Amino acid sequence: MFAASADNIVTGSKLLMELLGADSSARAEIAERMRAAEHAGDDATHAIFHQLNSSFITPFDREDIYSLASSLDDIMDFMEEAVDLVVLYQVEELPKGVEQQIEVLARAAELTAEAMPNLRTMTNLTEYWIEVNRLENQADQIHRKLLAHLFNGKYDAIEVLKLKQIVDVLEEAADAFEHVANTVETIAVKES
Amino acid sequence: MFAASADNIVTGSKLLMELLGADSSARAEIAERMRAAEHAGDDATHAIFHQLNSSFITPFDREDIYSLASSLDDIMDFMEEAVDLVVLYQVEELPKGVEQQIEVLARAAELTAEAMPNLRTMTNLTEYWIEVNRLENQADQIHRKLLAHLFNGKYDAIEVLKLKQIVDVLEEAADAFEHVANTVETIAVKES
Amino acid sequence: MFAASADNIVTGSKLLMELLGADSSARAEIAERMRAAEHAGDDATHAIFHQLNSSFITPFDREDIYSLASSLDDIMDFMEEAVDLVVLYQVEELPKGVEQQIEVLARAAELTAEAMPNLRTMTNLTEYWIEVNRLENQADQIHRKLLAHLFNGKYDAIEVLKLKQIVDVLEEAADAFEHVANTVETIAVKES
Repeated sequence: MFAASADNIVTGSKLLMELLGADSSARAEIAERMRAAEHAGDDATHAIFHQLNSSFITPFDREDIYSLASSLDDIMDFMEEAVDLVVLYQVEELPKGVEQQIEVLARAAELTAEAMPNLRTMTNLTEYWIEVNRLENQADQIHRKLLAHLFNGKYDAIEVLKLKQIVDVLEEAADAFEHVANTVETIAVKES
Repeated sequence: MFAASADNIVTGSKLLMELLGADSSARAEIAERMRAAEHAGDDATHAIFHQLNSSFITPFDREDIYSLASSLDDIMDFMEEAVDLVVLYQVEELPKGVEQQIEVLARAAELTAEAMPNLRTMTNLTEYWIEVNRLENQADQIHRKLLAHLFNGKYDAIEVLKLKQIVDVLEEAADAFEHVANTVETIAVKES
Repeated sequence: MFAASADNIVTGSKLLMELLGADSSARAEIAERMRAAEHAGDDATHAIFHQLNSSFITPFDREDIYSLASSLDDIMDFMEEAVDLVVLYQVEELPKGVEQQIEVLARAAELTAEAMPNLRTMTNLTEYWIEVNRLENQADQIHRKLLAHLFNGKYDAIEVLKLKQIVDVLEEAADAFEHVANTVETIAVKES
């Protein structure tokens, strides 16, 4: 079930990719598909909670399952929020660094989707964990440079506020990938 | 004791309601009463921690009690911060959406206060949990529209920054209600 | 190992102190030393996680050790971010309240470094916990007044955005000190 949730996040990250360079009618349609993906994510999360509720024995600690499902849900929420804000704020053009942010998220989404099935066997998780932490550091650097660009650039203050909100939400998505990786590590620590 | 903490939050949400439409001298007086309510909340939180400290057997897991008390405390802190910022920033007029935010918080406060006594019997908690999650989604929509209004409206940048801080803090209060509901759900999962 | 991590935070808080009044070339050099301190902090955190991984019996609950190490790591990250942003945004002059923020952080760092060795004997931790909570309240007041100063002062909107980011990160560092203190309290509750 975590794999389904992570596959959904890959869908979301591809929609973010499509958003770059889309015109305003295409954006509205991407936002629509993103909302559908987010609802699918909510359903996956509730299925995990329901299963958790009705199971006496769980493969890992209940708290860790809960935390993992919540963090996967958060990622989808942040990605959906980013698309929604681009439409809602009628942003003309996204600064170049946003593309880099989204590329990092797409890579983290792929790695997360690949890692989830390995929770069964508890193998190959260290590489995943290290790589997602490395990606989060990279996302952090991109985010800081983007803000410096917004603050020192040619934007007016209100435009800066709109764009800042969007790049901050994308940074929160990167952080949420790290939370997923950290929970996976916690599970691995307990199983070892 | 959780019920006392939640009743205090109802008091706080009523003070937020009073803040709307209050002139500057009335605001200062509301801020004073809000601070008193927040101190009462702190006392309730410390009473719970003290009880936890001196009890060998607890009705739920210690961590969940700790988390529940902390989240209830957070709600009060955010509500107090919102009032304090309105006074501190000498905000002239609050945009209309703030009233909607506060109405959602007031409803969540009522539901939370009604649900707390049900922790004894573990009944009627599912409805509470679902409804608070629904309210949080609603708060989220109101918050996003408020920001779009601030960014696309007639406000100057500094005024936007002041108002954004206030509406963000109110959104954090709505999130904290959801944390309380999620902790209640975690407790219910464990008890089932 | 927690003591090593906390000592490193004291180093970080001293670098923050040096930052005040440093010219731009001195700032770049302080940022360099801060990065080194942050890397040392990362190594300390990973050493704790590795030890946790390879130990069958741990002095406290694994989750609490994990949480304590993570929060100590967060403090270092926020302090490093603050210095990096001052350099990156080419901030001319920091408002006076920033000095007060940093003084509170330096005091919290000292108290935390003194408290960590006491985790062995579980003595003198109540005073530490109460004092760090008091400092966090003080930091919160300074932070709110700083924002009011930025919003009502002589700054243009973009400058306000830069400075707000920096004072917000310093406030997050103060919050992270409180998280450390709260985790210490949780450990003390369980041991009592």
